[in-house]
Amino acid sequence: MPVDLDLIRRLSIPAATKVVLCVLDGLGGLPGPRGRTELDEAPTRHLDRLAEGGALGQTIPAGYGVTVGSGPGHTALFGLDPLRYEIGRGVLEATGIDFPLEANDLAARGNLCTVDASGAITDRRAGRVATAITAEIARTLATIKLPGVEVFVRAVQEHRFVLVLRGEGLSEALTETDPQREGVPPLAVRATDPGAERTAALVNRFIAEAREQLRSREAANHLTLRGWAKRPQLPQLPELWKLRAAACTVYPMYRGLARLVGMETIDGGSTLESQFAALRRHWEDYDFFFVHYKPTDSAGEDGDFQRKVQAIHEFDECLPRLLALEPDVLIVTGDHSTPAVMAQHSWHPVPLLLHGRHVRPDHTRSFSELECAQGGLGTFPATEVLPIAFAHAGRLAKYGA
Amino acid sequence: MPVDLDLIRRLSIPAATKVVLCVLDGLGGLPGPRGRTELDEAPTRHLDRLAEGGALGQTIPAGYGVTVGSGPGHTALFGLDPLRYEIGRGVLEATGIDFPLEANDLAARGNLCTVDASGAITDRRAGRVATAITAEIARTLATIKLPGVEVFVRAVQEHRFVLVLRGEGLSEALTETDPQREGVPPLAVRATDPGAERTAALVNRFIAEAREQLRSREAANHLTLRGWAKRPQLPQLPELWKLRAAACTVYPMYRGLARLVGMETIDGGSTLESQFAALRRHWEDYDFFFVHYKPTDSAGEDGDFQRKVQAIHEFDECLPRLLALEPDVLIVTGDHSTPAVMAQHSWHPVPLLLHGRHVRPDHTRSFSELECAQGGLGTFPATEVLPIAFAHAGRLAKYGA
Repeated sequence: MPVDLDLIRRLSIPAATKVVLCVLDGLGGLPGPRGRTELDEAPTRHLDRLAEGGALGQTIPAGYGVTVGSGPGHTALFGLDPLRYEIGRGVLEATGIDFPLEANDLAARGNLCTVDASGAITDRRAGRVATAITAEIARTLATIKLPGVEVFVRAVQEHRFVLVLRGEGLSEALTETDPQREGVPPLAVRATDPGAERTAALVNRFIAEAREQLRSREAANHLTLRGWAKRPQLPQLPELWKLRAAACTVYPMYRGLARLVGMETIDGGSTLESQFAALRRHWEDYDFFFVHYKPTDSAGEDGDFQRKVQAIHEFDECLPRLLALEPDVLIVTGDHSTPAVMAQHSWHPVPLLLHGRHVRPDHTRSFSELECAQGGLGTFPATEVLPIAFAHAGRLAKYGA
Repeated sequence: MPVDLDLIRRLSIPAATKVVLCVLDGLGGLPGPRGRTELDEAPTRHLDRLAEGGALGQTIPAGYGVTVGSGPGHTALFGLDPLRYEIGRGVLEATGIDFPLEANDLAARGNLCTVDASGAITDRRAGRVATAITAEIARTLATIKLPGVEVFVRAVQEHRFVLVLRGEGLSEALTETDPQREGVPPLAVRATDPGAERTAALVNRFIAEAREQLRSREAANHLTLRGWAKRPQLPQLPELWKLRAAACTVYPMYRGLARLVGMETIDGGSTLESQFAALRRHWEDYDFFFVHYKPTDSAGEDGDFQRKVQAIHEFDECLPRLLALEPDVLIVTGDHSTPAVMAQHSWHPVPLLLHGRHVRPDHTRSFSELECAQGGLGTFPATEVLPIAFAHAGRLAKYGA
């Protein structure tokens, strides 16, 4: 479901309007114990009022039936075809810890693991070793010297870390070393195209030296690497839309995703209240604001129905601080659904609310999955969210005479 | 949102059915002073009865958030991807005055302008000079001789005219001469690809001779040219759909657009009543009729809410004359929305009504934006209107066994 970027470049025009995209991560849900969804159960008087004055719809992130991760979910919301513009796991992990990836950097997601005397994996997650220990190991691994390449190793959480190699001519065409099961040793890296032979050799040398460093440990004495990726060259929102765009997120991964499409970032502290305060401080500096709210997804992933209800309620209670800024166009939606009863991301369409000038009213009176499925905006690809928002903000000129 | 034309060619079959597409130009609206849209306010007993017995939906002309002009709006309704098949402004202007463009003609939209003694533009529209004066100037300009090329100049309205060059090897790869501001002289034409050098030289020679002709005038003493275009080679409806198609419009531009896709034209006089009478006279001659109704858009563009309401009402009052012909399938829709409160075309989805045999009924009871957003046909690309209509008319065979 690609949006036509050449058309956007041709038609987009600057304007004095302000557009805000609020992403409640994992917003869509499914009925819980009382037969109602998280969004049904949550008291949402402010969202309901916006729904009544605005219009609802539901989005498909990447395709019917396709469950997406945060990467493609946001890529789509930023108006880019998530099937065309893939963001590798290594890059996602690096952006998730605010690591400033450069254009030629090669990133991988690493796991510390535990192997026995024969080298076979006994625990793929090294007993979920403490993050502090992983950080200490990362500092040691970062001392490994490879010819012509800088090595960065950073702890993420528990057994997870990021490896970044910086240098010319590195290739992401590499196999993964995680055999995805225990009882066998980690695999060697192989090049999947001839241009990656040198990179494969460098990585295997890194692995060998790392194994020597870790050999004396009882647990977390080896590692696996996967998700080889370089920073993708994504179309940049400021150039596409002729505007200044800012991301205000608590979690670094979402800041990183926003940076990949050319957004600047503004420091919003750790609460929604402080995020909206940051928007107020920077209101004149930007035309478009992306606000990311994580608690809905965290609760959904934990299968905690009530906590997700509460997270939605808290968003709603805080919303007047944003409305006080009087954005010309406001979108409230999610990057994918995360029904608490599934305790994971799902493929279900994502509720969307559009409010602003010239929004054509529909029948809807409250913000819920049921109402969104009946909304005047219909069911549409998530890639169309920004074109719709910017049209309402007077930022798209007419096509043809 | 491209329709699969190869599939259409393969599946379309002749039949004895009659299909009528009524385009109420700029049909979709937004709430006016009383919180109801033009379509809500207009008494539409006949359309409402059709809505009750038929099905509603809403169309997207070229893309979500994309406002279209009449050209792409109709291209889409005729089942052709408006992003792939572009109709240049010069061609639109020429069709708008019924100028019979030939395949190799090169057309441009011209403006008379006024320049000072230094040659700088002082009025880009020459004080909106009277059409009669433009017509007189056009007759003089048409006497300019260019080697190997016939020159046609025709007044359109006020300062606007059309220039058509007829000859072999002309190219539309030319820059525009309108600098889009005053205080500077008109620009010379430049070729944007090497194959257009000769055309650029011819046009610059035309401009130089025109300037000499006009030099003695106080106002309207120069001209600008833009929208260089040749007649596009569009797929032809009679061949695609294996039928005889006729357009009945009051305004020439819409006849011209219909001719570009292979429709014949029938003279419908200047009122809807006479248009429907023309359909009756030609009922046996064609399978598909395109009826264009302009007053809805004119009122919308003028920001005249009440006049748009009245225009819809008048269409409804006249409708029984069409229904008396008992078309097998009737579509009533617009080419784009023109909300009177915006006084311009907009990106909002376009209401659509489908009536005929085997139309699956939906919940809708009246013809309005709200009901169309809830309609059984859903929200779909305007390019799919003809496939849906012709399917209901028994003109599309089964795909696959």
